[in-house]
Formats: sequence, C-alpha cells, structure tokens
Amino acid sequence: MEPIYNFSAGPASLPKAVMKQAQEEFINWNGLGTSVMEISHRSKPFLKVAAEAEQDLRDLLSIPNNYKVLFCQGGARAQFAAVPMNLLGSAKTADYIDGGYWAASAVEEAQKYCEANVINASTTIDGKSAIIPASDWVLSDDSAYVHFCPNETIDGIEINDLPVTDKPIVADMSSTILSREIDISKYGVIYAGAQKNIGPAGLCIVIVRDDLLDLAHSALPSILNYKVLFEKESMYNTPPTYAWYLSGLVFKWLKSNGGVAAIEKVNREKAATLYQYIDQSEFYRNSVHSNNRSLMNVPFQLAKPELDALFLEQAEARGLQALKGHRAVGGMRASIYNAMPLEGVQALVEFMKEFEQKNA
Amino acid sequence: MEPIYNFSAGPASLPKAVMKQAQEEFINWNGLGTSVMEISHRSKPFLKVAAEAEQDLRDLLSIPNNYKVLFCQGGARAQFAAVPMNLLGSAKTADYIDGGYWAASAVEEAQKYCEANVINASTTIDGKSAIIPASDWVLSDDSAYVHFCPNETIDGIEINDLPVTDKPIVADMSSTILSREIDISKYGVIYAGAQKNIGPAGLCIVIVRDDLLDLAHSALPSILNYKVLFEKESMYNTPPTYAWYLSGLVFKWLKSNGGVAAIEKVNREKAATLYQYIDQSEFYRNSVHSNNRSLMNVPFQLAKPELDALFLEQAEARGLQALKGHRAVGGMRASIYNAMPLEGVQALVEFMKEFEQKNA
Repeated sequence: MEPIYNFSAGPASLPKAVMKQAQEEFINWNGLGTSVMEISHRSKPFLKVAAEAEQDLRDLLSIPNNYKVLFCQGGARAQFAAVPMNLLGSAKTADYIDGGYWAASAVEEAQKYCEANVINASTTIDGKSAIIPASDWVLSDDSAYVHFCPNETIDGIEINDLPVTDKPIVADMSSTILSREIDISKYGVIYAGAQKNIGPAGLCIVIVRDDLLDLAHSALPSILNYKVLFEKESMYNTPPTYAWYLSGLVFKWLKSNGGVAAIEKVNREKAATLYQYIDQSEFYRNSVHSNNRSLMNVPFQLAKPELDALFLEQAEARGLQALKGHRAVGGMRASIYNAMPLEGVQALVEFMKEFEQKNA
Repeated sequence: MEPIYNFSAGPASLPKAVMKQAQEEFINWNGLGTSVMEISHRSKPFLKVAAEAEQDLRDLLSIPNNYKVLFCQGGARAQFAAVPMNLLGSAKTADYIDGGYWAASAVEEAQKYCEANVINASTTIDGKSAIIPASDWVLSDDSAYVHFCPNETIDGIEINDLPVTDKPIVADMSSTILSREIDISKYGVIYAGAQKNIGPAGLCIVIVRDDLLDLAHSALPSILNYKVLFEKESMYNTPPTYAWYLSGLVFKWLKSNGGVAAIEKVNREKAATLYQYIDQSEFYRNSVHSNNRSLMNVPFQLAKPELDALFLEQAEARGLQALKGHRAVGGMRASIYNAMPLEGVQALVEFMKEFEQKNA
C-alpha cells in the first residue's frame, strides 16, 4: 500500500510518530494500566503532563516570562468573543484588520461587544490577491487593541506585516502557530485552535501578556476569562485532558526535530516545491500574489474545473486525501502543516504532473 | 496481574470494550488509513459518526422530537454561564436549588447574570446528610427557570425529587446522565459534561426543549448560544471530534448492553453491594441518609483517618485506583459510573473487608 498523505485543513493530520506512541500507550499509559484520558486532571501524573506541555511550548516559541499560557476549551471562535470581552475594558472600539474569511468572522462576533473599526486589507496586484502593506492600514486612536489573522486558511493568504501601533496586537494564529519563528513580545494576545499545528480539535492555546488580565467585561463567562484561567492554571473547569496530552506529545516531537527554526525550513521547502510546480504549469493556478502566499494552505484551481471530481477521485486512490477546496471558494487546497512531510508534497506534485500530462 | 479498576470521579474510566476498539482503529479508522481525529468534521465519514451518536443518545434516553441535542465544547462550568445567558430572557430571577458543591458553584456564576433565588435543600436526618423534600422548596413567582443538580459527586448525594413548578426545570446531570431512566419531557434543559458517563473530558451534551431557543442575552458568546449551535448542528465551530466519536462508541456499547434500564439495574446492584457492606461495618462509614445516597459516587470514611494513606496505598497495589475523596471533604470516594463493572465493586468490598480485618 502507498503511504497516505492527508491534506485536511483541520482537524488535520498529526505527526505519525506521535500517533503511533499514543496508540501504543492508549489503554496503559505510564504503566498505570489505564488511559491518560481516564485519570483526574488533578492527579500528579496528569499535572506533570500539563506542566511539561506548557514548558515545551514556552521553549519552542521562546515565550517571555510576562506572558501567560492558557489551555482553553473551544477553538478560535470562542476567542472571537473572549478577546473583546477580556480586553475592551472601558474602550468602545477595537481595530480589526480584514484580510479574509476568518478575520471577517472575528469581526462579526466582536460587533456584539464593540464598534469594530474594520480595515480592509485586501487588494489585488497584477490580478492576484494580495494584502495592503501595514503602513497603509488606517487604525483608530481610541481602539483597545488591533486584531488580525496572519494566515487565512481558506484563501491561502498570509500577512507577513504586523500592525504599526502601540496598542496590544491580537493575533488569531490557529493555522500558523509553530510553523515559523515569531517574536512573541510584539503581541498582546495570541490564540490558536489546536486542530492544525498543535493537536486534536477541542483545545485552544491562548498566550496573553500579563498586563492585560484586568479588563474583563462583567458578563464574561468564567470559562473564557483569561485571569480566572491563569489563576486556576487552566483548570477552572475540567480541561480537555486528552487533547492537552496529545498536544504535549506534538511539542516534544517538534523539539526533537529541531524546534520551530528547523520546521520553518522544511515548511518553506514544502511550500516552494508546490508553488513552483503550480507556477510553471498552464494547467494549475494559484491566485495569490507571491508576497502573501500561505506557507500552510495552498489553494489551487484546475484550468478545467470540470475535471475537479476526477482529480479528487484519482488523488484519493493514490492516498492523497482531503484536497477539496473550501466550499466558499471551490477548487483544491493542500494544507501542509508541520505534520506533513516533504515527501507528501513531492508525492502530490508527482500526481499533479501525471494528471496534467493525461488531461491537459 | 490483577485487573485494574479505576474509581476516578472524572475524568473517569470508560468501558474497556470501547477503549479496545478505539485503540485498534486509532491510526486507521474506517479503512481510511488515518485517524478519525485527523479528518474534517464536515467530511461524510465524520458527519455519519456525529449523526449516529445523536440518534443513539436519543434512543437511549427516549428524547422527544421537540428537544434538540447539542454537542458543545466545555463542560458543566461553561453551562453555568450559558444557562442564564440563554434562558433568562427579560426575567431578572432564577431559582437555584442548593444541594451541594456543584449546585452552589452554578449559583456563583449565575449571579453575574441574575438574582439567584437560592433554596437551601440540605438538611440532616438522624445525623446523616439528606435533602429536604421538593414539596418544601420555596420557589419564587418571577423566576425564569428552576436549576438543580440531581447528583452531587463530592458529597455523594442524589436528589430523587423534581422541583414542583411549571417553570422550565434545568438539571446539571454531569454525573448521573445515562445511569438511570429519566423522563426528559419533565425538563427544560439537561446538560452533562462528558467525562463521567459519556466520554472523555472536553465535550458537554445539552438537551434543550425547542421553545427555549429564543431568549438569548445580547452578550452571549455564539459558541454558548443554544440556537446557534442547533442551527449549525453543533458545528458553528470545529467540534471536539474525537470526544464526539468516543462518546458515540460509548452509546453503542450501552445499547448493546441493554440500554439505560439494564445499566440502571447493574448500577443499583453495585451501589447496594457497597453501601450494604459499609453499613454493616463499624470500620467504615457513609454519612448520607439512605433517602439520598448517590448511585454513582460513594464517599466513605475510615473510623481511623490516620489509616487513610495506608488504605489508599494498599488499594492502589491491588489495582483499585483513584479512591481518594475530594480535597474538600477528605476520606475516600468510589465513583462507580456505568463503565465500572459489578466485579470492580466486589473487588473493592473484598479489599475493604481484608483491610478492616487487619486494622480494626
């Protein structure tokens, strides 16, 4: 059987070594004769899992000491409400950079709580989708924070700039966290749903600067309150322990593979391999300008959309799974998160070549 | 090696047959060559998992058609906020029956949103903890709903009465759902964190009567909004897919073992076995009146608390795990949810007898 490569945008594939270990110790973890998901979150063995996962993440991202790391339930959409409810304080406005579907979804939820000053960052350059440079984003004076989504999974667009502001910068990094090096100290809050580069769905990591913990809205549910979660060490409620454990395994896998700098190199090679092949082809097309192409999500269209179904069927038969584009945009999308090896991208390009030769 | 019986209060043990199946198909589920946690929640195979889990739960609990079933993130503590934010409407008051730790915790969160009319339901009969009969609970006229927690895991107290009211009854059934037959039509909302009788932590089931979906507070985060979750079929956000899948396996296990009526019989036999042994002993004591003893959580104290550590150590060595009582009350606690077989309780009683003989 050919190896299987799963290009799902999320929930996405996890490192094979992690899944193998998790399977082996599934019903007898740590010699306990039971699963890690069947023990108390307050038991010593689990507290060790929890603390190690946090420390490993701190090491991987060089998180400064004045930032708290929270392991929350829910995903990015929970944070779409949690961010304004935690950070507005007495302010009535927040800036939202709109670069695509997820940024716009964050605005929709934020508008329940504040006047969102929406800065449209989308443009086209030479007919390709691109992002207006950050120096041209018109921010408001009275905003509590500036929110943006550095990687748009659906459109395959990455924003490489940071907002130019002295306000706290809030970033939805669900689909880009741990894929490349970042300077945490430039952000006020970073949040990331786990189901792309961290672990299974049902966990959301929040990294928050400690001066931002005292601004909560009176109606904020405690389970979304950063200060409560910090004070209770992310155990105000029973946390999603199995997702936390699996994420910890992913962090250890990443460390043992050289950390974020090393995986960034692989990620750049993977993306370059795929974009270069697409660009030299007349048969496939990516509609994002090279300035803003995503490292993690590569959407592409066939010149003959009537062949989409055949493409997907033959790809599946070759073990290349979940390449169908998001229903909002159609076409194809290869999500190539950290767990996707270079060999998976090479296998995809090989298949695309063959398909082109037969059907061009 | 002796079999291992895990008496954890939650996250708790899951049926061994379920864990075995989950391990076997962990990295190659449904012949896909990948894990169920690595595929899209919107893919056909996962949608089938999701729909079957809901239908199986509906079958198990005979849920009427005018009730919606929601698979939410978070646990009961998320619902402590979600309940008032979804149900108050223009009312300013809700009734809260206080029978223990969890009921009181629900009050604390609800007080952010309403005036909670707290009805103290605790009393003592013959020196034992008990619950005042529901006919004596003084409810308010202007409450939006009546909230109670039928089973208190920490105190080991079960409330068998229902509030006498024409208002919607809201029940936190985290530690009792699926343990005995109930008449869903008597309730407005039932919610239950999964990590006791349903599946792993990180999922919460909400069963809500469909006339209660239009009362949401304007500041309610969408991820906690019953109507949004219903309209999006619990996929407003990426749901905790692996927890959903595992819960589905638990529901199938329960159906194949005769459903709720059959497991209730086993549960009553398990509880009777343990309580009867405790009651005839001078060495162990349970401080709950027989009217209100929990079927699921059996706290007990040793006559010589100085032997607690030795008891726990020797129990662990015999494969009888997680018997330590909650830190708020001390002593021991045996949680005997659906997944605990009668043999586990018999092994515990056997050990308790031996320990008593040696140390009385």
